[in-house]
Amino acid sequence: MEDDIFCMIIRGEIPSTKVYEDEDVLAILDISQATRGHTLVMPKAHYKDMLHCPGELLHRVMDVAQRIGQAAIKSLGASGVNILTNAGPSAGQTIPHFHVHVIPRYDVDTGGFEITMKENTDKDLNLPVIAQEIKEKL
Amino acid sequence: MEDDIFCMIIRGEIPSTKVYEDEDVLAILDISQATRGHTLVMPKAHYKDMLHCPGELLHRVMDVAQRIGQAAIKSLGASGVNILTNAGPSAGQTIPHFHVHVIPRYDVDTGGFEITMKENTDKDLNLPVIAQEIKEKL
Repeated sequence: MEDDIFCMIIRGEIPSTKVYEDEDVLAILDISQATRGHTLVMPKAHYKDMLHCPGELLHRVMDVAQRIGQAAIKSLGASGVNILTNAGPSAGQTIPHFHVHVIPRYDVDTGGFEITMKENTDKDLNLPVIAQEIKEKL
Repeated sequence: MEDDIFCMIIRGEIPSTKVYEDEDVLAILDISQATRGHTLVMPKAHYKDMLHCPGELLHRVMDVAQRIGQAAIKSLGASGVNILTNAGPSAGQTIPHFHVHVIPRYDVDTGGFEITMKENTDKDLNLPVIAQEIKEKL
């Protein structure tokens, strides 16, 4: 294990509010609560981001994220959920330990979570070329 | 299958730019290209959102999302990736067929993708109470 804040929480060196725990996966409330019930699901083993997590463990993490999303709707009155993971600083990842945000959404949000997805203004976007570039590295 | 636009794309009734396809999973470029390489990964079978997708199929979708994220870094020069799914209109879901956004990020972004995650200003947030509410429905 490394010395990022999530490893320290997993080792019990820093307190947290746990939502779920098993041998391999921990889920805790995000201290910022971007929305009510905002939860972080992570593997206990240290992988720096989702792109580096082994498949079976990724599945376990996603299963827990799904269950917490379902529970947020049943228990907190959320009407929707965003499930998000950021890989790398340019994607907004601040703690280099793979974690998935489960962000309950409400018909009237009081929180500070927002996704902006605007059409790209780059005129040099040739979709078949981009697809081919990705396919070559799959 | 239903008549949402993704079912129509899967049936070949509407054209798309495919990045990956197997028996159960399809990945296509998002027409808006919020960033260069913005891809949508979806099960071919119709489930309205991630919360309703059976576990094994969810795993398959996430495996493909992970591989495309890795490929975007190798092929497109991305330095990070956001992987996101929106469940429900209040979470920004516009097409009611489960899909995962794979959004490559660059050190200099030209696109229109942004996540805002601010601390909640709601003063009535009792973390142990919220965690207990979720746990009761897990």
